[in-house]
Amino acid sequence: MKKSGFLLAFLLFVFAISTISAQSPAAKNPIVYVCPPCNSDCDKLQFDKPGTCPHCGMKLVKTTSGDLKKQLSLKPVTICFYLQNGVEVLDFAGPMEIFSAAGFKVFTVSKTKEPIRSQGILSIIPDYAIDNAPPADVLVVFGGETGSRTIDGEVLSWIKAQKPHTQYYLSVCTGAFTLGRAGILDNLTATTYHTQIDNLRQLLPKTKVMANVRFVDNGNVITTAGISAGMDGALHLVEKLRGRDFAKSVATTIEYDKWIAEQGLIVKR
Amino acid sequence: MKKSGFLLAFLLFVFAISTISAQSPAAKNPIVYVCPPCNSDCDKLQFDKPGTCPHCGMKLVKTTSGDLKKQLSLKPVTICFYLQNGVEVLDFAGPMEIFSAAGFKVFTVSKTKEPIRSQGILSIIPDYAIDNAPPADVLVVFGGETGSRTIDGEVLSWIKAQKPHTQYYLSVCTGAFTLGRAGILDNLTATTYHTQIDNLRQLLPKTKVMANVRFVDNGNVITTAGISAGMDGALHLVEKLRGRDFAKSVATTIEYDKWIAEQGLIVKR
Repeated sequence: MKKSGFLLAFLLFVFAISTISAQSPAAKNPIVYVCPPCNSDCDKLQFDKPGTCPHCGMKLVKTTSGDLKKQLSLKPVTICFYLQNGVEVLDFAGPMEIFSAAGFKVFTVSKTKEPIRSQGILSIIPDYAIDNAPPADVLVVFGGETGSRTIDGEVLSWIKAQKPHTQYYLSVCTGAFTLGRAGILDNLTATTYHTQIDNLRQLLPKTKVMANVRFVDNGNVITTAGISAGMDGALHLVEKLRGRDFAKSVATTIEYDKWIAEQGLIVKR
Repeated sequence: MKKSGFLLAFLLFVFAISTISAQSPAAKNPIVYVCPPCNSDCDKLQFDKPGTCPHCGMKLVKTTSGDLKKQLSLKPVTICFYLQNGVEVLDFAGPMEIFSAAGFKVFTVSKTKEPIRSQGILSIIPDYAIDNAPPADVLVVFGGETGSRTIDGEVLSWIKAQKPHTQYYLSVCTGAFTLGRAGILDNLTATTYHTQIDNLRQLLPKTKVMANVRFVDNGNVITTAGISAGMDGALHLVEKLRGRDFAKSVATTIEYDKWIAEQGLIVKR
C-alpha cells in the first residue's frame, strides 16, 4: 500500500507538472484572432473570439499574441516598383496586389513624375521620379512595350545606383532585360517571357536563361516568366521574407487558390 | 480488258474529283501565320511561314485566311471599366490585361476626371468622367475599399442609365454589391468576395448568392469571386464572345496556364 501510495502521488505530481507546463506558455501567449493582412489599420487589431473584422469584414484568423507581436515588430518591407511608359498592366498589378496584401510598403517610380500610359490603356501618375525616389529594400522591374528593347541610359544608371541598399531584385516578364542590362543577372540563372528566351540568351551570354519555368530564384535575384507569372514570383518572395503560412494567407486573401508554393526553379535560397 | 479499262478510268476520275474537292477549300482559304492578339498594329499582319512576329516578337500561330478575315471583320468590343477611388488593383488589372490581349477596346471611367488612388498605392487618371463617358458593349465594376459599402447616388444613376446599350455586365469581387444596388442582379444567381457572401445575401434578398464558385454566368450578367477570380471571369467572357480556342490563345499570351475553361457556375449561356 505504501509503495502504491508513493506511486500514485508521483503520478499525480507528474500529471500536475505536465498540466502546468502545458498551460504556462498558453497563459503567457494566449490565442488571439486577427484579420488577415489587408494593409489597413485593422491589421493591428486583435480579438478574443473568432468572427469577422468589424473594420474590413474579413474572416478572423487564429494566432497567438506572441506570434502577432513578432509579426508587428518586423520592419516593414519597402518595395520600389519602377514603371516605364508602356508597362504591361498585369506585370505590375499582380505583385502590387500581393505585396500590399502582405502589408509591405509599395511605391511607384518612373523616369519623371509625368503621367505614363500602361499598355496604352491606363494613365498612371508615378509617386516619384528617379531623381527623388527614396531607397527601398526590394526593386521590381516589369515588361511591356519597351521592356525588351533599349532602356533609357539615365534609368539604367539609376537602377545600378540602387545596389547599396537593395536586398532583393525581382523582374517580371521582359523586365529581365532591364536587370540584365544593369549587370544584375551576370553569372546567374534567369527566365523571361516565353517568346523572348532566345533574345535574352543573345543579350546575356553570361546568364543561363531557362525556358518553361515559372520563376528562377538565385537567392536575392528573382526573375519570372511572363505577365501572370509575376504573381508567383511575388508570392515566392513573400514566402522567403515571412514564411510559407503567411504567404498562403496572402494567396487566400486574394483568392489565388491556384498558387503552388515553390513552383519555380530555386537555384539558391 | 475493256471492262477493267473502264474501271480504272472511273477510279482515276473519282480520285481526281476527291483530290480537287479536298484542295479547293485550301486553295481558296490558305494557311497563314499571325501573331497572337497583343492589341498592336501587328495583330493585322499575316505571314506565309511559321516563326516570330518581327514587330512584337511573339511566336506566330497557324490559322486560315478565311478565319483571319472573319476575326478582323468582327466589330471591336468596347469595354467600360468603372474605377472608384480605392478600387482593388488586381480586381481591374487582371481583366484589363485579358481584354487588351483579346484586342478589345478598354477605357476607364470614374465619377470625375480627378485622379483616384487604387488600393492606397496607385494613382490613376480616368479617361472619362461619368458625365462624358461614351457608351460601351460591356460594363465592368470592381471591389476594393468602397466596393461593399454605399455607392454614390450619382454613380448608381449613371450605371442604371447604361442599360440600353450594355450587352454584358461583369463584376469582380465586391463589385457585385454595385450591380446589386443597381438592380442588375434581381432574380439572378451571383457570387462575390468570400468574406462578403452573407452580407450580399442580406442586401439582395431576390438574388441567389453562391459561395465557393469562381464565377457565375447568367447569360449577360457575370459576377466573380474575389480579386484574382476576375481573370477567370474575363477569360470566360472572351470565350463567350470569340470562342474557346481564341480564349486559350489569350491565356497563353499572358502565361495564365492555370486557366481552366468553364471553372464556374454557368446558369445560362
